[in-house]
Amino acid sequence: MPEPLFLRACRGAAVERTPVWIMRQAGRYLPEYRALREQHDFLTSCRTPELACEITLQPVRRLGVDAAILFSDILVPLPGMGVDVTFSPGPQLSRTVRSAGDVAALRIPDAEESTPYVLEAIRLLRAELDPAVPLIGFAGAPFTMATYLVEGGGSKSFAAVKQLLFAAPETAHALLATCAETVGRLLAAEVRAGAQAAMLFDTWAGLLGPDDYRAFALPYVARAFRAVAEAAATLEVDVPRIYYAGGAWGWLEECGGTGATVVGLDWRSSLATARARLPGLALQGNLDPAVLLGPPALIRERAARVLEDAGPRGHVFNLGHGILPMTPPDHARVLVDVVHERSARRIA
Amino acid sequence: MPEPLFLRACRGAAVERTPVWIMRQAGRYLPEYRALREQHDFLTSCRTPELACEITLQPVRRLGVDAAILFSDILVPLPGMGVDVTFSPGPQLSRTVRSAGDVAALRIPDAEESTPYVLEAIRLLRAELDPAVPLIGFAGAPFTMATYLVEGGGSKSFAAVKQLLFAAPETAHALLATCAETVGRLLAAEVRAGAQAAMLFDTWAGLLGPDDYRAFALPYVARAFRAVAEAAATLEVDVPRIYYAGGAWGWLEECGGTGATVVGLDWRSSLATARARLPGLALQGNLDPAVLLGPPALIRERAARVLEDAGPRGHVFNLGHGILPMTPPDHARVLVDVVHERSARRIA
Repeated sequence: MPEPLFLRACRGAAVERTPVWIMRQAGRYLPEYRALREQHDFLTSCRTPELACEITLQPVRRLGVDAAILFSDILVPLPGMGVDVTFSPGPQLSRTVRSAGDVAALRIPDAEESTPYVLEAIRLLRAELDPAVPLIGFAGAPFTMATYLVEGGGSKSFAAVKQLLFAAPETAHALLATCAETVGRLLAAEVRAGAQAAMLFDTWAGLLGPDDYRAFALPYVARAFRAVAEAAATLEVDVPRIYYAGGAWGWLEECGGTGATVVGLDWRSSLATARARLPGLALQGNLDPAVLLGPPALIRERAARVLEDAGPRGHVFNLGHGILPMTPPDHARVLVDVVHERSARRIA
Repeated sequence: MPEPLFLRACRGAAVERTPVWIMRQAGRYLPEYRALREQHDFLTSCRTPELACEITLQPVRRLGVDAAILFSDILVPLPGMGVDVTFSPGPQLSRTVRSAGDVAALRIPDAEESTPYVLEAIRLLRAELDPAVPLIGFAGAPFTMATYLVEGGGSKSFAAVKQLLFAAPETAHALLATCAETVGRLLAAEVRAGAQAAMLFDTWAGLLGPDDYRAFALPYVARAFRAVAEAAATLEVDVPRIYYAGGAWGWLEECGGTGATVVGLDWRSSLATARARLPGLALQGNLDPAVLLGPPALIRERAARVLEDAGPRGHVFNLGHGILPMTPPDHARVLVDVVHERSARRIA
């Protein structure tokens, strides 16, 4: 069997067309997902391997995307660290982590003990998935994980986590090291269970200026990706390391130092500028998710522009952020089809 | 009397030290502001010229900043457009503006009739302020105003305004033209009332990618700034046009086409990179507001770095976003003092 298209694009190798998948492709915009969620709450869906497997497969069947991404949540490691999470619908943590004592009380969980359902879902999926459609495992990037732990949930101003960085940097570094070790172990376990690519979501990295990104985010991303690289080397497989950094345009060059092999970007600049700033790395993105709320003609026009900006090699087409819940599923299908058709025509 | 420092810096002229003011310098972090607000609600404070004048003066007295900015809100023109606003504490609009009919029903208010209290506060302030401390008038930039009108208040995903742009662009353009005309008239009236600089806040511009910024934000900012330039030309005064664009790092060059003479930036990249990308314009910013939650030594170190990045000419020191409500007022004073001392030493 030839190496799947998605994995070749991640390596920057020649492809016959540009692969595409969609962040949050398994989710609320799909009626089959909503039907399943009427019977099972969000955490149960994450924690039941058969449900997570079924939800992961839904968009693969409907859209014909070139990669699957495990249905899970970046906060699933928290209970193993000693912090419970509920969703209503945003995450609510059972406590906040703000002092040196709070950080010292955190555990670094073993992924097989703390999140066995994640690894079992991966094993089920590898048996179910078409071998041409690789499975992406993921975790939250250390700074983004730390943000939730400090704020105790989502936030508008993120003042508590910023205050920790600036007023108690040693405590912040201890927390970030704990998060990096936790997500590094989780991603490595996902790779051993069968994940064919490992992605870190740094949704809140854009809260940071360049100096603080270098101090508080970059080294911990690098540490987690080293765990992935070691697991892959032991297995003698090539596992792309995908880093999604929201709001990264101010310090994009720094993403080249994280150990990522693919950098996923939002839509606030063009991938043509990213190419020049991140030489040698593959890019993932970056259509504005709201374009899928417009008519099919607009979707086709804008998708073509992203393909043109990115060029034919080393590009995985995606949205620049998760698909919006009110997106018509047919529009997601229009996107996948136009990426396939236009990129094949272009490359041929 | 020599031309005030702040105005010289806005023109890129020689200065003996870098001027500094702080976005939201009149606000909740000040005990004297909170004391006044215990007796008067937010809208009453905006709509009573004596109160707005007093609140505007509070940080000038306490901090020794080099410019005053009128205490007001970007949403004050809305009632004159036909949409009421309440604050609890975030803004709640009496209706949303989403259809062509909704847009057609909006009025373009005359600033003297719709917001006389803004202009009266400016007249009071010009009589009260030290002539060395210029007064900045402001309004919301058209896209940011439109965002509130479409969403009906704040938002997390801003899906409604993005949907309007992509699914009904003609309606979006009609709304943006109405907003541009409204804020252009307001800013021009502020200049005629005595405002010495005119600022547009484009808080939500960073929601847009570069193509959409060029289509939906830039031309309307330019239209509003033309009204300022015309009012200033009639009065035969030089009025700096300051444009604050949040999240602008992906399409920063475009800010040069807005007619702004000063561009205010957030902290997500360095002003050294902005210098190269916006030749000929003055810059304002860009310390992370959360740095003021750290110790004085950190404030001094980070302020020095911003001064170094910006260089000695054509720089107005500011935060990269509004001061956080939990900021110790003494820390704001530390910032003002260190900017004054270090920049004077550097320039001398």
